[in-house]
Amino acid sequence: MKIRRSERMVVISNYLLNHPYKLTSLSYFAEQYNSAKSSISEDIAIIKRAFEKTSVGEIETLAGASDGVIFRPTMDQAEARQVLEELKELLAQSDRILPGGYIYLSDLLSTPRILKNVGRIIANHFRHEQIDVVMTVATKGVPLANAVANVLDVPFVIVRRDLKITEGSTVSINYVSASSDRVEKMFLSKRSLKPGSRVLIVDDFLKGGGTITGMTSLLAEFDCHLAGVAVFAENNQENRNDLIYKSLLKVSQIDTKSNHLVVDVGNIFD
Amino acid sequence: MKIRRSERMVVISNYLLNHPYKLTSLSYFAEQYNSAKSSISEDIAIIKRAFEKTSVGEIETLAGASDGVIFRPTMDQAEARQVLEELKELLAQSDRILPGGYIYLSDLLSTPRILKNVGRIIANHFRHEQIDVVMTVATKGVPLANAVANVLDVPFVIVRRDLKITEGSTVSINYVSASSDRVEKMFLSKRSLKPGSRVLIVDDFLKGGGTITGMTSLLAEFDCHLAGVAVFAENNQENRNDLIYKSLLKVSQIDTKSNHLVVDVGNIFD
Repeated sequence: MKIRRSERMVVISNYLLNHPYKLTSLSYFAEQYNSAKSSISEDIAIIKRAFEKTSVGEIETLAGASDGVIFRPTMDQAEARQVLEELKELLAQSDRILPGGYIYLSDLLSTPRILKNVGRIIANHFRHEQIDVVMTVATKGVPLANAVANVLDVPFVIVRRDLKITEGSTVSINYVSASSDRVEKMFLSKRSLKPGSRVLIVDDFLKGGGTITGMTSLLAEFDCHLAGVAVFAENNQENRNDLIYKSLLKVSQIDTKSNHLVVDVGNIFD
Repeated sequence: MKIRRSERMVVISNYLLNHPYKLTSLSYFAEQYNSAKSSISEDIAIIKRAFEKTSVGEIETLAGASDGVIFRPTMDQAEARQVLEELKELLAQSDRILPGGYIYLSDLLSTPRILKNVGRIIANHFRHEQIDVVMTVATKGVPLANAVANVLDVPFVIVRRDLKITEGSTVSINYVSASSDRVEKMFLSKRSLKPGSRVLIVDDFLKGGGTITGMTSLLAEFDCHLAGVAVFAENNQENRNDLIYKSLLKVSQIDTKSNHLVVDVGNIFD
């Protein structure tokens, strides 16, 4: 394809955005756009500065035989804080309180712009960890896992609370739901997770921690390792001393009588 | 922010990619990057050519009082065909056949690169329709709905087969599952869908069509309109004369004895 230099820069930056964490050789771009490798190098230096100034991400260039370029999405703390401040306001709307002290979240976790930012914040926090797979539990965790997996460019797996024929053979475990104090089951398709994978667990709402503990037990059944836990929101009224996790938002008070909800930013920046 | 012209082009193209279907005034960019509107205009002309040559999308520029720019993602048919040919091969792997003639799809629908391309193909097909919301049914439809909604930049809603307290008050309907011939229920949170919305229904696998028909009935309950139906794969052995839909892939033969699967491209290009 023959394109002008100024156009080439747009096209290469778009390519990098769509191929995070992938090493692409300069020769690939040189062939693709019929240009000298030195020109491609200059283009990438400009894209690198632009991405850094607007905190889109970091570009690493490797010299030598395996010369190439890798793009890693980032998000600076100021932008992340602003996103969470806005989400805090949205979550604190009093009409979200449901009977039993539950909170309606579905609208937030089904809006692409919110999901993209939430995915960027979580992925950015764990970007120095080796993560092979994102895991969540059906149903509301799915868009969240999807959003994080998009940024990390890794697959995600969905743990289910019911047994579905379309999952093939499954591994199941029992866990104690801290909220209901009952023994529950969860299932994961046997072929969905390779042994030895490093797994980031994400979920929409953390109450007692039973679901997260259940997923952690599943990891052991699959000979996989826990790389981290991140939740969209947590309820800080419960006791979960032994659980290490990052939360984006924290619901510190739910008053069902006065319909009042107090929400803070979670422990993600601690 | 003060950045060089070449960097500005990278930054503006990234902005447009992240704000599809949104009208942004040239003044916004001019202020943001401390540049003349005429320079921004030239930048956008270059980005427009680059996006068109690589079929990333169309850029429309509006002149006059409401001067501005709108980016609409597209996908050309050659690229879409290539994506579907590759997916066809993946889906035809014999180890996907499950007892009962079901097919294991979960790995495909949880890989970000596949989902992004599938989302682009479906969104591109319906890009001349007015679509306000994407609807799907839990669980495997969720990543698909998410992918399509990302490209169209609209929210998605998740119909459930079970009743969850975290959804608040719900509307439920009964429908007949064509595969099992039983009457089943589906639920949708009352506040998740505004009356008058135009809805694109997506699902992972189309067999008898009962689930799609059920979701269509739900639309009527919410005074919403059907804008279209798209499925990732369909099984063409069933009879669904009255259903209008687009499929990406078509499983034309499942032989559970010889473990043989025949997959074709669906009716999306018809």
